[in-house]
Amino acid sequence: MNQHPDYILNQINSPKDVKNLTIDDLKKVATEIRQLVVEKDAAIGGHVGPNLGIVETTIAFHYVFDSPKDKVVWDISHQSYPHKMLTGRKEAFLDPDHYRNVTGYSNQDESEHDYFKVGHTSTSIALATGMAKARDMKNENGNIVAVIGDGSMSGGLALEGLNNAAKLKSNLIIIFNDNQMSIDDVNGGMYKMFAELRETNGQSSNNLFKAMGLDYRYVDNGNDLETMISVLEEVKDIDHPIVVHINTLKGEGYQPAIERKREFHWHVPFNVEDGSTKNVATGESYNKLILDELGRQIDDGKPIMAINAAIPGVFDLVPFKEKYPDNYDDVDIAEQYSITYATGLAANGARPVVFHNSTFLQRAYDQLEHDMALNGYPVVMLVKGGHITENSNTHQGIFDIGMISSIPNLEYLAPTNAEELISMLRWALTQTDKPVVIREPVTEVRHGEADDDYTEINYRVANQGEKVAILGLGAFYKLGEDVQRKLKEDLNVDATLINPISATTLDVETLNNLKKDHELVVTLEDASMVGGFGEKVDHFYANSEMKVLNFGAQKELTDMVPVEELYDRYHLNPEQIVDDIKRVID
Amino acid sequence: MNQHPDYILNQINSPKDVKNLTIDDLKKVATEIRQLVVEKDAAIGGHVGPNLGIVETTIAFHYVFDSPKDKVVWDISHQSYPHKMLTGRKEAFLDPDHYRNVTGYSNQDESEHDYFKVGHTSTSIALATGMAKARDMKNENGNIVAVIGDGSMSGGLALEGLNNAAKLKSNLIIIFNDNQMSIDDVNGGMYKMFAELRETNGQSSNNLFKAMGLDYRYVDNGNDLETMISVLEEVKDIDHPIVVHINTLKGEGYQPAIERKREFHWHVPFNVEDGSTKNVATGESYNKLILDELGRQIDDGKPIMAINAAIPGVFDLVPFKEKYPDNYDDVDIAEQYSITYATGLAANGARPVVFHNSTFLQRAYDQLEHDMALNGYPVVMLVKGGHITENSNTHQGIFDIGMISSIPNLEYLAPTNAEELISMLRWALTQTDKPVVIREPVTEVRHGEADDDYTEINYRVANQGEKVAILGLGAFYKLGEDVQRKLKEDLNVDATLINPISATTLDVETLNNLKKDHELVVTLEDASMVGGFGEKVDHFYANSEMKVLNFGAQKELTDMVPVEELYDRYHLNPEQIVDDIKRVID
Repeated sequence: MNQHPDYILNQINSPKDVKNLTIDDLKKVATEIRQLVVEKDAAIGGHVGPNLGIVETTIAFHYVFDSPKDKVVWDISHQSYPHKMLTGRKEAFLDPDHYRNVTGYSNQDESEHDYFKVGHTSTSIALATGMAKARDMKNENGNIVAVIGDGSMSGGLALEGLNNAAKLKSNLIIIFNDNQMSIDDVNGGMYKMFAELRETNGQSSNNLFKAMGLDYRYVDNGNDLETMISVLEEVKDIDHPIVVHINTLKGEGYQPAIERKREFHWHVPFNVEDGSTKNVATGESYNKLILDELGRQIDDGKPIMAINAAIPGVFDLVPFKEKYPDNYDDVDIAEQYSITYATGLAANGARPVVFHNSTFLQRAYDQLEHDMALNGYPVVMLVKGGHITENSNTHQGIFDIGMISSIPNLEYLAPTNAEELISMLRWALTQTDKPVVIREPVTEVRHGEADDDYTEINYRVANQGEKVAILGLGAFYKLGEDVQRKLKEDLNVDATLINPISATTLDVETLNNLKKDHELVVTLEDASMVGGFGEKVDHFYANSEMKVLNFGAQKELTDMVPVEELYDRYHLNPEQIVDDIKRVID
Repeated sequence: MNQHPDYILNQINSPKDVKNLTIDDLKKVATEIRQLVVEKDAAIGGHVGPNLGIVETTIAFHYVFDSPKDKVVWDISHQSYPHKMLTGRKEAFLDPDHYRNVTGYSNQDESEHDYFKVGHTSTSIALATGMAKARDMKNENGNIVAVIGDGSMSGGLALEGLNNAAKLKSNLIIIFNDNQMSIDDVNGGMYKMFAELRETNGQSSNNLFKAMGLDYRYVDNGNDLETMISVLEEVKDIDHPIVVHINTLKGEGYQPAIERKREFHWHVPFNVEDGSTKNVATGESYNKLILDELGRQIDDGKPIMAINAAIPGVFDLVPFKEKYPDNYDDVDIAEQYSITYATGLAANGARPVVFHNSTFLQRAYDQLEHDMALNGYPVVMLVKGGHITENSNTHQGIFDIGMISSIPNLEYLAPTNAEELISMLRWALTQTDKPVVIREPVTEVRHGEADDDYTEINYRVANQGEKVAILGLGAFYKLGEDVQRKLKEDLNVDATLINPISATTLDVETLNNLKKDHELVVTLEDASMVGGFGEKVDHFYANSEMKVLNFGAQKELTDMVPVEELYDRYHLNPEQIVDDIKRVID
């Protein structure tokens, strides 16, 4: 049910309706939008600070421009909630029953006012320049506006975009939303210079945008509606590219989001009154075990450098950073740099440990292959989030095994429990042969046995059975246990259960031995199967009598599909797997 | 035999010997180095202009600094020939019998004065910053110098590097070798601003380096040895990062390389006297067929935009650019941008065609997945160089199938002849369903039949036989023909021969039909097999009686290994393949 039938926002069914409101009413709409952002995010989680900071810009855009003839491209698009509310999708914010009707990102399938599904950073300048060029080729007109900020400017793609946008000889408006933050605090040199621009009201000569050949304008109060309207009216229909640098407050209008900017960039469900988290996780965590181990090694004098690209929260790195500031580097949003920088550190004798989200690590595929693996220095990496989730299609991290396992000269280890994770980390930091990537499990912390040395990959055979062998990789080892048990119960088959340790290297001896008394090998991986672990096993047995069944995600980009539904679709429940096995061995 | 026993260079066995020479002698050494660069490249091909331009910087570095305590990191490292000559590897330039003793790139396996194998651009700032940070962590000293230029500065990784280098509170010297060129002419806004800096002797306020928070110094004559020595002496042991912007002439000392800078960036064997190419290719080329087709479509009014990232020569795009300047965009070295920009163009109704080298396309994996494929706009791409070659390990393009085929929602087509290539291109530019990537064959032009429509992938069955079926993908279809013939001759097996059309999508019906009267499927792909085409076929048959043999490159990074040797190693000769087949079907 609509929680706010009294809101002026109810009168806005399309951007046209924005133009008919008075400035006073629009200011009220701004307050309403902020309330709805907070209410929805408090209930189901979402991006808080980015949306609160951009409210006036969004209202001003729709007041001044004529969408969709004039087009706005949102960088990352995690700040597009206000835009959605003003473009026919307000119900998804007013009515909790409809909260899940829209995604957290822009989406051309939802509205003619959206053009892209995006969730990674730094894309908007390139996308908008492409749209502007296409407009010119077709001899059309209309403004193209890119909105970028929130740390995205440090990403190489955004900077490549500035260099190329400057070539355009027609309309393009780049709104640089400078909220003085990326997801975390921003560190790099450009941010120091942006601060100088803010302090000098845009007059400092150290100006990245002018140095890229772009026209430039500074707006000190980007959260003032009348200012934003008058600025956008002035740049509307401009005949060349311009950067409009606006100074805004991340979290504007909600005190907890202003005070705890990092925490409220994206937040799990929280209590509106004080911003406290509704369900605080307790107990052991793999993150903490990893960081405790790194701390011990630093205390022992090991030259460890923990590197991340603006996502310390994902790995609980904030307390680590406070305790070991000299052993911590947040490189801003710059995934490519993180890998190449780590290679340089390792080449000169330091021990870098790079923390990455699987979906963002895609930015650094070439750096993994050409910079890191080719050179063979012992960079260590932790990769998280490469699992089948109900994430939006913009943040599917499930391609990590296919991506990483195609690269020679590195090892991608998949621990199944805490002891194995820490043992692998210790070994990775001791050996000097090659880069080692470790796939952090996302299950609750499990305990078990572990090997000390992973120079050779020797599968751990937990149960030596016959007929069927189950290879349960990493987080799906537990699923293997369940399947093994159920096969015994339902079919009286004593299946062999194996922990294959690595997503990249096959234990040829063990696989060959299975040929003697097994007729089926079952692979389980919590990732996309294309190019992944199971296909390597298929390849191994392709020319033998052994049959293989692979389980994992199909090749598709799912969008906020509940995990249960995906498991059902992919046959990842023990009953389904046993059923599929039954059909083969009968 | 040493061609120049009289050269002063013969006295230089390590950088120490550089310091003992007089400036006059060093100037003679500069001339000798240039002569040797030209002689070697004329004989076996190589990078010409980049090496000729950097001679004085290299000599000055070794005169002023103490390598390897002081370390120099070469960006791309295609300009490291002079460095190799001064660091114990002169024989590989003086003596044609030893030309192939060293690679064309820096290589830590060759010398203690090299630290990285690199051949892709824009890495040096990140690598050097990592080395500097490691030095500080270990409380060591010594200078770290990165040399970057030749178009590398437009790459996102280099710009991410500037932002992060500015955080360092210790010694780092970034020499920006501004030769006013990337591989091709440079286009973007930053290059206009670099020109301003050159014109104002470094005084212009539009300064990218200062805007990134870095100290800065301009040197107008980077090809003057005494100037370079005195500048490097001044910045030696500096206690913070600094950019030394030097103005040099690409090709200095060799007139053909100065006059034809693009052509002489990298050159096949040529005649020294006039720079003319020794063996000019004649006859049909796939490049020309592609560009002729695009030209026809542009003439018909289609809004085509041909995009490349500073490699027009690879696709013979220069004449196209001259004829269709409004339909051509060289985005500088910025592979990520090229894909995202193309997505923006396609989203707004233009028809982008993006040309890429397989090895450099690795830079844009995330853009292929998250920007291009997820959004589904009909970007068209041509990919070249994804083949088994004797390239150095820095430029192995063989991972393209594994990389691209893991991405949902795009089609990777592999034509086997000219008619198929053009038919696929036409279809790709007509359909609006999804991005289409086409793998340009590297064989000499072949002719044959083609389908008109690739909406569904229907394998072309060239010969319907029995027992053995051969799937010859793209450029390896010819190998399939050879194997088919030899199977008939040697074993009297009438094998089925199939052109599988696509590297990503299986024709399930045809593959299922093979189960009736075939016992073995053979896959042939001119690429790395890991995550590739053959493994998809393995996966398809994993749970059936069908046996599969895959042929392609093993998972490794080979370094200048002759193709014949690789074919032998990978069993890619018809005799070997027939032999392997025999072992299975007997």
